[in-house]
Amino acid sequence: MKIDHVGIAVKSIDEAAKFYQESLGLTVTHREDVPTQKVKVAFLGSGDGGTEIELLEPTSDDGAVAKFLAARGPGMHHVAFHSSAIDADMERLKTAGKPPLDESARPGARGHRVCFLHPKHAHGVLVELVG
Amino acid sequence: MKIDHVGIAVKSIDEAAKFYQESLGLTVTHREDVPTQKVKVAFLGSGDGGTEIELLEPTSDDGAVAKFLAARGPGMHHVAFHSSAIDADMERLKTAGKPPLDESARPGARGHRVCFLHPKHAHGVLVELVG
Repeated sequence: MKIDHVGIAVKSIDEAAKFYQESLGLTVTHREDVPTQKVKVAFLGSGDGGTEIELLEPTSDDGAVAKFLAARGPGMHHVAFHSSAIDADMERLKTAGKPPLDESARPGARGHRVCFLHPKHAHGVLVELVG
Repeated sequence: MKIDHVGIAVKSIDEAAKFYQESLGLTVTHREDVPTQKVKVAFLGSGDGGTEIELLEPTSDDGAVAKFLAARGPGMHHVAFHSSAIDADMERLKTAGKPPLDESARPGARGHRVCFLHPKHAHGVLVELVG
């Protein structure tokens, strides 16, 4: 699997995007509200289909990203891997004793089906699969 | 700039590499001791030159990664961007009021010259530039 994106929790997408644009030369490739996860997101990359940065800004105080920010402050939140067969991969993880947090893949950003794997199953990293 | 790798602090490279290999299908592309940073590292990817995972395991209790593990446990440690002109990029960051932690680029893993940018200048993310 390739690394699809690195998720970063931020207080303000506009402020953080400015840093990635001005200091690191990335460009915004996509913006979206993801109400099911109580965040709005922006993807930034070099526009070549490679791994991108996903900035996540809470749109409500009671979502998972808002709680992450309250507990730890802004920073790296998850790593997402592109899966070309997400249902089979989820089944394989279950069989290996690492069941994803989601029973089945659910709608995520950019029209993809996604699931998350708890950090306890991934050496401290919240892992997302993007189908 | 493209994302070169995602640095992940782990207690055991062998244990963590097993997860990335068996659960996510990555392969180890490189292993190295980096005595200047008191770690040993392993890079894992899909072998296509894309963004990789760098696992960092402390080789001493008093290095930065050992302290990170003691304080926060295993998890995401830094994001590294490939810079095709690292000296000029460092100068540009200095001018923008975001001086890298290193006065000048220093030897890093895989024979590259590297520098780090403090999370306070990067919305909570430890950023590495890889020249």
